[in-house]
Amino acid sequence: MTTALPALSDIPEEVLPGVLRIETSDREASTPIIMDMLRSVYPHDQMFGQFCPVQDYIAAPPREVYEYLSDTRSLEEWTYSLRGFVETDEPGLWESADRLGPNTKIYTRTVANPDAMTVDYHCAWDQGKHLWMVYLMRVVDAQVVFDKPGSVVLWTNCRHPFYDENPYPEAAPPGRKVWVGDFWEMFSAGHRIELDNLKAICEYRAAHGLPLTPDWMK
Amino acid sequence: MTTALPALSDIPEEVLPGVLRIETSDREASTPIIMDMLRSVYPHDQMFGQFCPVQDYIAAPPREVYEYLSDTRSLEEWTYSLRGFVETDEPGLWESADRLGPNTKIYTRTVANPDAMTVDYHCAWDQGKHLWMVYLMRVVDAQVVFDKPGSVVLWTNCRHPFYDENPYPEAAPPGRKVWVGDFWEMFSAGHRIELDNLKAICEYRAAHGLPLTPDWMK
Repeated sequence: MTTALPALSDIPEEVLPGVLRIETSDREASTPIIMDMLRSVYPHDQMFGQFCPVQDYIAAPPREVYEYLSDTRSLEEWTYSLRGFVETDEPGLWESADRLGPNTKIYTRTVANPDAMTVDYHCAWDQGKHLWMVYLMRVVDAQVVFDKPGSVVLWTNCRHPFYDENPYPEAAPPGRKVWVGDFWEMFSAGHRIELDNLKAICEYRAAHGLPLTPDWMK
Repeated sequence: MTTALPALSDIPEEVLPGVLRIETSDREASTPIIMDMLRSVYPHDQMFGQFCPVQDYIAAPPREVYEYLSDTRSLEEWTYSLRGFVETDEPGLWESADRLGPNTKIYTRTVANPDAMTVDYHCAWDQGKHLWMVYLMRVVDAQVVFDKPGSVVLWTNCRHPFYDENPYPEAAPPGRKVWVGDFWEMFSAGHRIELDNLKAICEYRAAHGLPLTPDWMK
């Protein structure tokens, strides 16, 4: 018999009505609540309105997938439209073209953590001072979570308010009609395509004994 | 004018038909592909079959939310049914009851990274030798991704094959009829409830000047 610890002892019981714990709502009481939350289908906006999560398994070693992703230039390969990466005068800040927009520059700084295997691309269209488009990625060892060799890649974007309105219109090329946020509704599919690209590239290289990070990046 | 880097120069062009890049599929060609992937609704299994991602914004400081989560005993508060955490003889490995199952022990080892603010709960029912139920969480500074103070919490579970079949039936208490994997289909709602709990607890404490990690954990 375990003894419960003094959980929530600093909070008066009646003030957290939104909290659902087995002490106050046993399985019999909670099951209909859960069943009522489950759906056979979920609307696009509920799934991808504020967050855009995509995930996949990749048959390639996690450390190598992580190292590949942590090189900003990997985006030249697996993204749909980021091309021509050149490091700017500011170390670690890269400039490239986002061919989704005419004459559109995108700036990227990659922040990677080798222990957690997180890879975050901090980006922005047009200017490199405020990198507000953040692609949060993480590589996980599939042995741990799927009991097989390989990698799991988790990728989440958050709908920053600047997607809805360009905060730096003066930095845009003259006459450009599109804004990156116009594509938010398509991100779930667009990122799915790009994750499929990443998977295909990594799996081809791993299966053919090629280094996951190609020679041209070295 | 940017010059494209030698992306994919190590791979013969024809062998990666699954890769979709703007060079071979321009916006005009790609838009219908993307539109065809988008749906007004998505089936449960497509959204939560192999991965179970949930996310939310929490109006509380990210470093404090991270520190709270990284203490295994926080699970005593915000989970639905994990209670009575006691550290085992093996340092960092905790035993508690999962009251979802009768007489069911759950073992947890928390692996946290303060720089990436990842918090992974490596757990298992019944035995603590093979912790295959992995709750991958991450705290993100909402200032960066939502342009406002607070935290974003990302949480993903992967459908490990042991969810479908108990690999250590001999470790189960005699006569127990349920298995943790029986609940996989409900994880999206169950984790949503638990993330709501976490949000409510953290926001109450932050709003009332209470330490996010309560005194009893210290």
